[in-house]
Amino acid sequence: MLTLFYAANTCSLASHITLEESGAAFETMRLSFAENDQRKPEYLKINPKSRVPALVTDQGILTETPAILVFIAQMFPKANLIPANDPFRFAQIQSFNSYLCATVHVAHAHRMRGYRWSDDQPAMETMKKKVPQNVGECFDLIEREYFKGPWVMGEAYTICDPYLFTIASWLEADGVDPKRFPKVLDHRTRMAQRPAVKKILARETA
Amino acid sequence: MLTLFYAANTCSLASHITLEESGAAFETMRLSFAENDQRKPEYLKINPKSRVPALVTDQGILTETPAILVFIAQMFPKANLIPANDPFRFAQIQSFNSYLCATVHVAHAHRMRGYRWSDDQPAMETMKKKVPQNVGECFDLIEREYFKGPWVMGEAYTICDPYLFTIASWLEADGVDPKRFPKVLDHRTRMAQRPAVKKILARETA
Repeated sequence: MLTLFYAANTCSLASHITLEESGAAFETMRLSFAENDQRKPEYLKINPKSRVPALVTDQGILTETPAILVFIAQMFPKANLIPANDPFRFAQIQSFNSYLCATVHVAHAHRMRGYRWSDDQPAMETMKKKVPQNVGECFDLIEREYFKGPWVMGEAYTICDPYLFTIASWLEADGVDPKRFPKVLDHRTRMAQRPAVKKILARETA
Repeated sequence: MLTLFYAANTCSLASHITLEESGAAFETMRLSFAENDQRKPEYLKINPKSRVPALVTDQGILTETPAILVFIAQMFPKANLIPANDPFRFAQIQSFNSYLCATVHVAHAHRMRGYRWSDDQPAMETMKKKVPQNVGECFDLIEREYFKGPWVMGEAYTICDPYLFTIASWLEADGVDPKRFPKVLDHRTRMAQRPAVKKILARETA
């Protein structure tokens, strides 16, 4: 059995959607960031990093979105969420997701979580101010260079799609007008219509 | 043919070492960050993100360390740099490398590259000040929770090892005493003795 620890309005949405799309049987445990569940001793046993997502499997616990997405895709190959036996195309998927994780998500995080990198309140305000520029530049690059269409990697829906959808859903709150990125915006609209996405969003916002 | 674009004293060292360990035939192109090579039009055609590493392959160009390391491991399976047909162990490797990329490297980057996240010089100074704490906490976690020994993932040398070695080599400059992490420090010492590592370090520092 798989159990996903998630919190609403976080990057764990990508893993949550991917589990649903994969056809896996899974359970969920919901954390409330408002209640600081992620810092409680019970959760630190699951994920000592105090973050979501964490995926509890029969073999152990996994963290980090790019790793979890590939694990789900490899465990449930019938869902065709990654190409089989094609190291280059797989690497392109990994590269895209790594960019989302280490650059785009990090750019976004400087709006609400500047305290991670500075103890100074005025400094955090200056970080917050730069978020629209940084997140906007990341999405410019995605729109121009990396989004193949109709899905991120072209004709095939892959584990890049729910991850892009998750981070693109933060654009307005990050102070970036999604209309600047017609392909990403259209992708977001089509993603939101997928049955798996509708189901998981309904669960996360319930 | 494979061509690695790298710069000395950067995370591209992990890909450089891994290419050497894999037995691949490859060429290198060295960028000078002091000369801002990474922002020149010729290089932006290779990597529009203005970063290293970039790996030029016969099928196209790859960026992002975690993606490049897995690609090399999959293209040269005889080097045994990742486990074959074991999604969970592979996911543990991916999780470790994703943490290095998106959390540890990012914590480090706030020392020299605070301008990425703020336009304000005093704010950058406050970020710089917090780097020893943040990088130190990351390595505490690695030492306590994730390093299995003798290599990162246990008995088998994997693509986690050159990546950890690369980032651990920045500890002193980040203001963190590596003696706090005996396992990581011993690993760093043993890594530095591997013929492939000696060869690549000699090339990068030449």
